[in-house]
Amino acid sequence: MYFTKMHGLGNDYIYVNGITEHIREPERLAVRLSDRHFGVGADGLILILPSRRADFRMEIYNADGSRAEMCGNGIRCLAKYVYDRGLMKKKELIIETDAGMRRLRLETDEEDKISQVTVDMGYPIFQADKIPIISEHTRVVQEPISIRHMEYRMTGVSMGNPHAVVWVNSVKRLDLAQIGPEFEYHGRFPRRVNVEFAQVVDREHIIVRVWERGAGETLACGTGACAVAAAGVLNDLTERHVTVKLKGGELSVLWDEADGKIYMTGPAVTVYDGIVTV
Amino acid sequence: MYFTKMHGLGNDYIYVNGITEHIREPERLAVRLSDRHFGVGADGLILILPSRRADFRMEIYNADGSRAEMCGNGIRCLAKYVYDRGLMKKKELIIETDAGMRRLRLETDEEDKISQVTVDMGYPIFQADKIPIISEHTRVVQEPISIRHMEYRMTGVSMGNPHAVVWVNSVKRLDLAQIGPEFEYHGRFPRRVNVEFAQVVDREHIIVRVWERGAGETLACGTGACAVAAAGVLNDLTERHVTVKLKGGELSVLWDEADGKIYMTGPAVTVYDGIVTV
Repeated sequence: MYFTKMHGLGNDYIYVNGITEHIREPERLAVRLSDRHFGVGADGLILILPSRRADFRMEIYNADGSRAEMCGNGIRCLAKYVYDRGLMKKKELIIETDAGMRRLRLETDEEDKISQVTVDMGYPIFQADKIPIISEHTRVVQEPISIRHMEYRMTGVSMGNPHAVVWVNSVKRLDLAQIGPEFEYHGRFPRRVNVEFAQVVDREHIIVRVWERGAGETLACGTGACAVAAAGVLNDLTERHVTVKLKGGELSVLWDEADGKIYMTGPAVTVYDGIVTV
Repeated sequence: MYFTKMHGLGNDYIYVNGITEHIREPERLAVRLSDRHFGVGADGLILILPSRRADFRMEIYNADGSRAEMCGNGIRCLAKYVYDRGLMKKKELIIETDAGMRRLRLETDEEDKISQVTVDMGYPIFQADKIPIISEHTRVVQEPISIRHMEYRMTGVSMGNPHAVVWVNSVKRLDLAQIGPEFEYHGRFPRRVNVEFAQVVDREHIIVRVWERGAGETLACGTGACAVAAAGVLNDLTERHVTVKLKGGELSVLWDEADGKIYMTGPAVTVYDGIVTV
C-alpha cells in the first residue's frame, strides 16, 4: 500500500488515496500503522475518498481505531495531497467530512506546491447548554472555576466540540499534566472539555497551550485556536484577526465580521512517501 | 533519499544504504528524521557502510544526534537489510561497529527472508571496577543498595556498558519512573548505570523491565537481556540458555559454556520503505 506521511503543526497522519488503494478494515489498519515503534507512527490514518456532493471525502481514523469527525490540521494536509499530486488542480475545494462540508482555500509556493491552506471552520457557538457547560448564565464569559484550590476564569466556546478558554499571564509555568485532567473531568463539563490556556502578547498575538480531551497536551489544535480567537474578541482582549502560536507552530485565525464565520490559515507539510505491506 | 524503517522488539531505526546514498551531516539528519511528529520518527538513524575489515560497517546516530557504539536490536535489523536486499547473501556476517567486530548468524524463513538473527555479544564482565560499580568486593553479587528507603539487592555486569540486575518477585507493580532515576544517578555508579528488574518465571524464563541510562524505560535492551542471563547463572537462579521476555518482545540468550561468550537471538522486522527529500 502506498502512503504519504504529512503533518500540520506536528499533528501527523498517514494519508492514503482510497480511490486507487482498496482499504479493508481501516480501523485495524490505523491501530497497526499508527504505532510509533512497531508501525509507521502517526496520530492516525486519513483516507481520501470520492464524494458525490463534494470534491473529496475525508475519513479520519485515530491511532486507537476510533473515528474523528474533523481535524483542522488533517484537512489542510489533505488539500495539499490532492493538489500537489494533481488529483484536483483547484485552489478552492469542498471536502465532505463527518462533521459536514468544509470549504478550503489553497495557496501555492513558487514550485506550484501547496504551502498554506485556509479552512472555513464555521460559526463559534457561545450558548452554555450547546457547548455544553453547566452555568447559571446563557453564555460562559470569564466565569470562575476552582481547580486544585486555585481559581481560574474561563470563557466557553463550541467549535463543534467543547472548549474552555482560560487567560493566563504566562503559559510557560503551567503544570498542564496536573491541572489539565482536573478541568477535563470537572463536573461542569457533561461531555468533558478541551482547555486552552492563552496568553495575550498583544491584540494581534496569542500564545496557547492546549489540553485536548482524551489526548492530553498536544502540539496543536485547530478548533482550539479558533475558540481562543473567538474568546479573545468576546473578552475584548484581541482583534478579530490574530496569530495563534501553539507548541507545534503558528495559525492565523480570522473571525470574519461580514459572515460571522471563523477562517483558520496554516501550513501543510509532506514528510515522505512510503510503501508498506498490509 | 531512500530509507527503510525496521525494528527489533520495537527499538526502531531508519536504515540507509550509505554505499549508494551519499549522506552528509548524518548527525543533523538523525535529529531531523527521528522526530516522531515532524519527521519520519525513530529511535535514530543507522548507516550501512563499506568496511575494509568486515562485511559492512554500522554507524548508529541517536535521535539526539549523538553516536551509539553498538545496538543489539539495531545490528539484527542491519543483517536482515543486507541479506533480504541481496547486498550480501551470506548467513554468517561480520559487522564492524564502534564497539568492535560483531559476528552474526542469520536464519531465513520460507520466503528466504531473514526472521531471526543471533549476535555474538562477547563476554560478560563481573569485576566491580571494570563495570564500574563502587564496592568493597571484587564482584558485585546480590549486594544491598538503598533506594527511597527500600533495600534492593543487585548484581553487577558489564556487557561493554554497565548494568545492575535486580531480582524482584513481580515486575508489574514497579514504579520505574520513580526508582529508575535514583538507581541511574546513585553514587555507586560512577558512569551511571542501566538497571534491569528481573522476575524469574522458571529456570528457563525471565521477565524483565529495563531502565536505560539516558533513555528511561525502554521496550527492549539487548545488552540488558544478556546481563540478566549472566546474573541468573551467577546467582544460580536460571540455566545458561534462557528466554528473556521484555516489553517489546522476547530474546533468546545463551551463555555458552564452551567459549564463555553470550549469544543473543531475536527478531528483525522490516516495517516499510520510504523516500524522503533531504
